[in-house]
Amino acid sequence: MDLYEAIKGRRDVRSYFKPDPIPDEVLARILHAAHLAPSVGFSQPWNFIVVKDRAIRERIKEEAERQRRRYEELLTEDRKAIFNKIKIEGILESSLNIAVTADCTRFGPHVLGRITMPETCQYSVVLAIANLWLAARAENVGVGWVSFLDKELVKRILEIPDHVELIAYLTMGYVTSFPERPELEEKGWNTRLPLSDLVYQDRWGRKNEDLRRALEETKV
Amino acid sequence: MDLYEAIKGRRDVRSYFKPDPIPDEVLARILHAAHLAPSVGFSQPWNFIVVKDRAIRERIKEEAERQRRRYEELLTEDRKAIFNKIKIEGILESSLNIAVTADCTRFGPHVLGRITMPETCQYSVVLAIANLWLAARAENVGVGWVSFLDKELVKRILEIPDHVELIAYLTMGYVTSFPERPELEEKGWNTRLPLSDLVYQDRWGRKNEDLRRALEETKV
Repeated sequence: MDLYEAIKGRRDVRSYFKPDPIPDEVLARILHAAHLAPSVGFSQPWNFIVVKDRAIRERIKEEAERQRRRYEELLTEDRKAIFNKIKIEGILESSLNIAVTADCTRFGPHVLGRITMPETCQYSVVLAIANLWLAARAENVGVGWVSFLDKELVKRILEIPDHVELIAYLTMGYVTSFPERPELEEKGWNTRLPLSDLVYQDRWGRKNEDLRRALEETKV
Repeated sequence: MDLYEAIKGRRDVRSYFKPDPIPDEVLARILHAAHLAPSVGFSQPWNFIVVKDRAIRERIKEEAERQRRRYEELLTEDRKAIFNKIKIEGILESSLNIAVTADCTRFGPHVLGRITMPETCQYSVVLAIANLWLAARAENVGVGWVSFLDKELVKRILEIPDHVELIAYLTMGYVTSFPERPELEEKGWNTRLPLSDLVYQDRWGRKNEDLRRALEETKV
């Protein structure tokens, strides 16, 4: 699949999962794409725990429901009404889940490039997730990132060691469709910001007229 | 460009920049790709400061040199010898630099999905950087992430407000070549880990034999 098509067509999937299994060779291609991501000092701090077990997924879903209720209580009535129409996870409906972790001790302690920005360890794992997400789209597999979870609780359920950090809990599966626009945009939760408002030149807040025009006229 | 080709051919460029300018419409496509990244609660917390000014870049390069020396002092003699062959940045040789930031107050305070994982704000910006990096590769533009920098110092130089966080300082430009392998692998800094060692099933440390075989037999 063309890169720009994958970027435009990628979605955060919660509502459209089908139960069809993902063949191991498809999953392997997606994981290899993740493993080809850049990492600070070539430290490759990621691990991937493929979660298929139903009982484990049920425990994690229960936790997501609990966090959903906690979040709902913070919202105004207007926002609550929109939020209640939004599905936040497809933990059980998807074909499998993947927990993605960061081991920042790997190739340590002095990983090249991390002296002033230790968080580039975790960021490297996020870059791997980005590759995974796009490769999945090219394989017609949907991915949803579930963040309504207490990380320490998920770590205990999956027996992840203390020194390893949970970066993301993903749900993956074939889908009935990849909607045209993000669900949160469709449902009126937020709007897409104009990119030309977000790009500056040489210092914060300063616009360049030629670049602004190019940003407004360009489509990908 | 095919997605898997972009993923395989993407490099963290420090040594191969050419000074040729990047046309605004090419830069616009690359930034649009970044803006199409997923973000927690569709919060789009990113800004992009395109840095072309020579004097600003010189100040930032000076800081990278200083951090390089600090890091070098931590290394054993063996590692120092390898490190001294490695170029860590192409701040002046590249065509332009881009500072990428996170404004975690945007659409706040209660961004959907951030209640238990506030760091998904910063992670969203990293996902945008991943898209940018791959789109640049498809446009034959190299990208290098320079992390030998004190973020607060860079923020002051670029007049970035207090509540906005610097996530990455990137260098971008056309290149003489995209090397076959990462430079840190070529120069013997680290080795590529076997992916099948990094993938578990249902809990940390447990392997699945079928998936292990698929991972070892699959190429992308």
